[in-house]
Amino acid sequence: MADPTSPLARPFPAMPAIAGVRLAVTRAGYKNWERADLTYAALDVGTTVAGVTTRSKCPSPEVEWCRAALTLGRARALVVNAGNSNAFTGNRGRAAVEAIAARVAGHVGCQPSDVFVASTGVIGVPLPIDKAEAGIDAVIQAPEADWRAAADTIGTTDTFAKGASTTAIVDGRTVTLVGIIKGSGMIAPDMATMLGFIFTDAAVEAPFLQTMLSAANTPTFSCITVDSDTSTSDTVLAFATGKAGNAPLASFDDAGADAFQAALTDLCRQLAHLVVRDGEGASKFIQVAVEGADSDASAHRVALSIANSPLVKTAIAGEDANWGRVVMAVGKAGEPAERDKLSIRFGSIQVARNGLAVEGYDEAPVGAHLKGQEIEIGVDLGLGDGRAIVWTCDLTHGYISINADYRS
Amino acid sequence: MADPTSPLARPFPAMPAIAGVRLAVTRAGYKNWERADLTYAALDVGTTVAGVTTRSKCPSPEVEWCRAALTLGRARALVVNAGNSNAFTGNRGRAAVEAIAARVAGHVGCQPSDVFVASTGVIGVPLPIDKAEAGIDAVIQAPEADWRAAADTIGTTDTFAKGASTTAIVDGRTVTLVGIIKGSGMIAPDMATMLGFIFTDAAVEAPFLQTMLSAANTPTFSCITVDSDTSTSDTVLAFATGKAGNAPLASFDDAGADAFQAALTDLCRQLAHLVVRDGEGASKFIQVAVEGADSDASAHRVALSIANSPLVKTAIAGEDANWGRVVMAVGKAGEPAERDKLSIRFGSIQVARNGLAVEGYDEAPVGAHLKGQEIEIGVDLGLGDGRAIVWTCDLTHGYISINADYRS
Repeated sequence: MADPTSPLARPFPAMPAIAGVRLAVTRAGYKNWERADLTYAALDVGTTVAGVTTRSKCPSPEVEWCRAALTLGRARALVVNAGNSNAFTGNRGRAAVEAIAARVAGHVGCQPSDVFVASTGVIGVPLPIDKAEAGIDAVIQAPEADWRAAADTIGTTDTFAKGASTTAIVDGRTVTLVGIIKGSGMIAPDMATMLGFIFTDAAVEAPFLQTMLSAANTPTFSCITVDSDTSTSDTVLAFATGKAGNAPLASFDDAGADAFQAALTDLCRQLAHLVVRDGEGASKFIQVAVEGADSDASAHRVALSIANSPLVKTAIAGEDANWGRVVMAVGKAGEPAERDKLSIRFGSIQVARNGLAVEGYDEAPVGAHLKGQEIEIGVDLGLGDGRAIVWTCDLTHGYISINADYRS
Repeated sequence: MADPTSPLARPFPAMPAIAGVRLAVTRAGYKNWERADLTYAALDVGTTVAGVTTRSKCPSPEVEWCRAALTLGRARALVVNAGNSNAFTGNRGRAAVEAIAARVAGHVGCQPSDVFVASTGVIGVPLPIDKAEAGIDAVIQAPEADWRAAADTIGTTDTFAKGASTTAIVDGRTVTLVGIIKGSGMIAPDMATMLGFIFTDAAVEAPFLQTMLSAANTPTFSCITVDSDTSTSDTVLAFATGKAGNAPLASFDDAGADAFQAALTDLCRQLAHLVVRDGEGASKFIQVAVEGADSDASAHRVALSIANSPLVKTAIAGEDANWGRVVMAVGKAGEPAERDKLSIRFGSIQVARNGLAVEGYDEAPVGAHLKGQEIEIGVDLGLGDGRAIVWTCDLTHGYISINADYRS
């Protein structure tokens, strides 16, 4: 974990073990650092899996591997490497992933396609196969680790460990869902961002787990942005061990499916918010809520235009009630908008209505809202019923410091 | 002019007077500052005009005024206000523009529609009509100013005065073109960005001047970006006084029309580059050249994805040869791209070819290139013949400092 810790950090919560999941970590030494950087999860026979991955046109070989393995829907192990993304490394990168899957399969006695692999870190440097293989041999023997250790180990520029858990009643049984996630830069929406791993003891058939994970992704991971930059390695995987003993969920007609979907979406939202809270250099958590758009999709694009605007984000960093920059960001979005129907609020304080500042506009309460850590920008386009919410953070000197010399 | 001056600044060039143009500046006092903030250009009878304006859905009333006046194609005066953009101010903003045009028209004895108005500065605060009218009364009486004074006066967060000039042979006569420009933040392509004013003594019919200005805009102003944020007030106007005495240019069939177009495009490119050189916080001038794309339009979008990426821009700021971030930016552009056909260079040094680092990649010469002030990122997508060039600057602490407290 990098220092200093984000001022928006949340304490790592107490998270229950998931029957059928065994965690371990070790130091493979992918970078010249004194910390564990290889995370391993052993998954009992019968575990199903679903995933969402980056829409980048230059995906990592790990992403391609997971996509292929996801079509089979079953999982026995997860390996996460930190410090090297292995992306854009050609055949050598593919060979590294294949070697990892084969090594784990040999230990576990499963198919290589039962092994899921994710890597995060610098792009363009092949993952060293010898270090990965030695790391796997070590982690297989390592003592069991807890969620906190796993969440620490998957991080790179993250400043705090991020995890969340929840429960649902399915088929008369309480099932548990836990998730850990990493990510603080190269975070953009419109795909499954970052590396996130969700585990549940519920029994869920793989195709339906995929349906529910995709549905949970849309209003959560796809609605956050730190810097508008989309990673080549973004992956969220959900594993269901079935140990809770419920009748396997196969469709929304099954008892408890709606409850499970709600819990899964809630968990994804918690994890997505934690990623924003650890946005590189972040000092403010910002919710952008757009309503009155032509459509929900249009509202989403307007909200992203605001959330990705460097001038909006620096104004929030400066606690400056410069709402004109929100006008600018709406105007540049390329979506249906009419200047003279546009209204803007900060928190609950209306600042502009129908194309100009409200009568007797008083900046003091807006300034007070901006001094907090939780900021809301509300925009009403006044056109239709479309609405969307996205989350982002401010843009500060910290972002520049972190990213102007991340590799060195 | 703000301090400190951009390290990429260029000295203000010697620029010839344009017959038929008389400049003056005064202090209207739009902000609490001790500097001239109202620029005035008197234009002789017979001056034609063309313009390109922002594509923002929330344009300023000045933009709307200019668009309407441009349909008539003639100009007698230009007023530029600095320190207040008058955007998003409803009827009061429109009234301010109308008052300015009427006041000037009264002095000059012309139609209000012969008066062009542009304003730059904070959004959402109506331009004070009393200050504008008093400023106009003063500037009409003011002594003649030179290009340097005008270029200084139209600036806001600009750190140096920006101007350029060139000539062309038209109809056997040498015609002169000069331009001044302001802009250093809220600069994004795909429209006429910033406030730019071009003056020539050539005789050009207004519709053809518009054709040529629009053509000049496409590969110049529309190919720069500082921060991806599009202003509500972007305006470039070109005025042709006709005093050179050439037979008025009316089409590309006329002798000298091609030469004039070339000179106009060259002038626009010079001015566009100066805006990037004064990008807020800029320490590096970056050319992004994309080739091998499916189409020129696709290449342009990929180039912008790179040029607007905060992670690419901070890497350049840190003189860090982190070319993986270029891969990321290509991957996120949403344009046709194949990872394993992608090649990348910095300056003339190839760093990656066909989806991975070149054999024996040596970072040292790339590092040397990045220590310079003029950086080139070259990308070959390996798909087709589409190509594009865009220009941007790096993203530094200076940008954060300037924008986290611009209004205060």
